[in-house]
Amino acid sequence: MSETFSPTAQNEPPPDTRGFRFNHTMVRIKDAAASLAFYQDVLGFRLVDRRDFPQGGFTLFFLMLSDAPLDVPDDAEARRSWLATQTGVLELTHNHGTENDPGFRHHDGNSEPKGFGHLCVSVPDIRAACERFEREGVAFRKRLSDGTMRDIAFIQDPDGYWIEVIQPRPHS
Amino acid sequence: MSETFSPTAQNEPPPDTRGFRFNHTMVRIKDAAASLAFYQDVLGFRLVDRRDFPQGGFTLFFLMLSDAPLDVPDDAEARRSWLATQTGVLELTHNHGTENDPGFRHHDGNSEPKGFGHLCVSVPDIRAACERFEREGVAFRKRLSDGTMRDIAFIQDPDGYWIEVIQPRPHS
Repeated sequence: MSETFSPTAQNEPPPDTRGFRFNHTMVRIKDAAASLAFYQDVLGFRLVDRRDFPQGGFTLFFLMLSDAPLDVPDDAEARRSWLATQTGVLELTHNHGTENDPGFRHHDGNSEPKGFGHLCVSVPDIRAACERFEREGVAFRKRLSDGTMRDIAFIQDPDGYWIEVIQPRPHS
Repeated sequence: MSETFSPTAQNEPPPDTRGFRFNHTMVRIKDAAASLAFYQDVLGFRLVDRRDFPQGGFTLFFLMLSDAPLDVPDDAEARRSWLATQTGVLELTHNHGTENDPGFRHHDGNSEPKGFGHLCVSVPDIRAACERFEREGVAFRKRLSDGTMRDIAFIQDPDGYWIEVIQPRPHS
């Protein structure tokens, strides 16, 4: 499979899939406070919903990161419907109590058994972004200067999930 | 952590994160042909880019699923820049040859060691969508009629990754 890619020669989606949207990606988190601080304060995600299931012992956090204005409804039901019409949502699942277990760790998918790889955040200025991540004490998996691909970096969230950092235009 | 959620009382993203976007989620796939057929023909994703790395022995596929018109550039460099400005992209990584190993399997993240949970597709009519998935022979992890949550389903992609199916408005 190495033919030249042509976007105009691609599939027309089946009519039965009209209105389908890639709504969200879910990963489990150990420590809700740590993950919310990271995704909100370091990466700039907005928390657009949270759903508590005290009997099930878990909480779901929904976050979005986009320049688009977000008109998040106040009413919980309306917010749920609104959220389901969005794309590019990140869902974090916190099973209560894992944050108190020193040995508890999630699997990032990049060592055996492999599967999930990473999330990716696009930034306008990757050098400035990476310098800020350094100042914020973010863990790096790959700095811009590491390896041969000098235009991407990989940082890690508090659970160790890999987050690719890219920039639309090549940096100078 | 069970306080009432109020979207208007949420964080204002730091100015340094202006322009940041949640660009994509990457998962590894065993069989590119099977996964492309599933994501394009069953779910309606559009293939918006592919990048072949013959020396590295892998290919990256980028797909989007949204009603928004997609003006995908023909030029590879322009397409790469365009793609980096999007949100809600799904990246599939195919390491060449895994499709020929009968015992090869990816880890879906929902058994030990846990981490990644699922992708989620929102559909306008979840009953019609699930009936069509049945006709298409899609594997179900949870049918609408299973368990107590009758308004969501979980299907599985060719690698076994879980895909939640939701509908913005409650179905009748």
